[in-house]
Amino acid sequence: MNLNRMEQRISAEDIANMDKRYRVNFINSLPGFKSANLIGTHNEVGHTNLAVFSSVIHMGSNPALFGFVTRPTVVPRHTYQNIQTTGHFTLNHIHPGIFKSAHQSSARYPDEISEFDAVGLTPIYSEKIKAPYVSESSIKIGLELVEEHNITANGTILVIGRVLELFLNEDIIGGDGFLDLEKAETVCISGLDAYHKTQKLDRLPYAKP
Amino acid sequence: MNLNRMEQRISAEDIANMDKRYRVNFINSLPGFKSANLIGTHNEVGHTNLAVFSSVIHMGSNPALFGFVTRPTVVPRHTYQNIQTTGHFTLNHIHPGIFKSAHQSSARYPDEISEFDAVGLTPIYSEKIKAPYVSESSIKIGLELVEEHNITANGTILVIGRVLELFLNEDIIGGDGFLDLEKAETVCISGLDAYHKTQKLDRLPYAKP
Repeated sequence: MNLNRMEQRISAEDIANMDKRYRVNFINSLPGFKSANLIGTHNEVGHTNLAVFSSVIHMGSNPALFGFVTRPTVVPRHTYQNIQTTGHFTLNHIHPGIFKSAHQSSARYPDEISEFDAVGLTPIYSEKIKAPYVSESSIKIGLELVEEHNITANGTILVIGRVLELFLNEDIIGGDGFLDLEKAETVCISGLDAYHKTQKLDRLPYAKP
Repeated sequence: MNLNRMEQRISAEDIANMDKRYRVNFINSLPGFKSANLIGTHNEVGHTNLAVFSSVIHMGSNPALFGFVTRPTVVPRHTYQNIQTTGHFTLNHIHPGIFKSAHQSSARYPDEISEFDAVGLTPIYSEKIKAPYVSESSIKIGLELVEEHNITANGTILVIGRVLELFLNEDIIGGDGFLDLEKAETVCISGLDAYHKTQKLDRLPYAKP
């Protein structure tokens, strides 16, 4: 072993022996900074639901596919149930003006309470998507469910959606399609509960040997 | 439709009609800021491989599981092939001192060239993991393959690994297990090729109704 002397080794056994809350904070910090999205849905009678997720990833560009991970047996289980019901959901970027409201949506509200009302965000609808967008979000994406995968190792589910439409301000779109997420003031998440703004180091050219 | 007037609507048809390179930039920007990790592997004769990924996500804390998405038929296919061979891989955080080298690892080097050598990063091994760590990374995680899912919608693969060990400096670990990724200088990615440092807005308490 020739790892840097300053570094501590933490084993799988150490992780298993951690206090539950400590472990959740620790392991959630490990992948690095994560995307910050509010997922909007509604149920069979149109009651709206909103929940913050840090597991949304790009899965493909043509067709445009995004995935996220959810645990169906715990909060925010309504998100998953509603997507099963309607086949639709929305992704809505979080900015500094709404990150506290966004985080508050992770509280365990009763079924009859909409997180939109509880946290003070505004649901709006397009004609295309059977799920509410967050009016205050600078980037809003409407998707249809296309695929699910049950993760055997821990009972979570990977939910994959295809983009049907999206809304954003044109002035963040670069000439080559790149979006200036700093202009949109999109934030990111570390761990379970830390929100960060960003500062661009550089955009790098397509790498060639 | 009552979306903000400033916003442009972009439909699935608009996306399908985009120029390929434009679409890749655009859709890769949409999920928000993404984690930035170098994945280290080696093949059956120990030739090392290194590739940058922005799709690593937390999938569970007990056991500690992380997933990433790869496309087996294109670069960086060696990562996937090597994980099939050895059952192991490493995740290594990227900081401002190595982000240009990290990005360069995405170039299509011939089989016999190690990206470590080509981009000037240093492979190091622990006794536990049959894959190289990146010496220069401030957070290094060693995993074993536990599960794969073939994504029907576009032929990509979700690869899931379980943490066997990790290395980091103790001084970034908070009293409650939260890691100070800004102290570790971990960066994040937007789109395909933009690297960002972060500035914490706040850590928020556990949300209650």
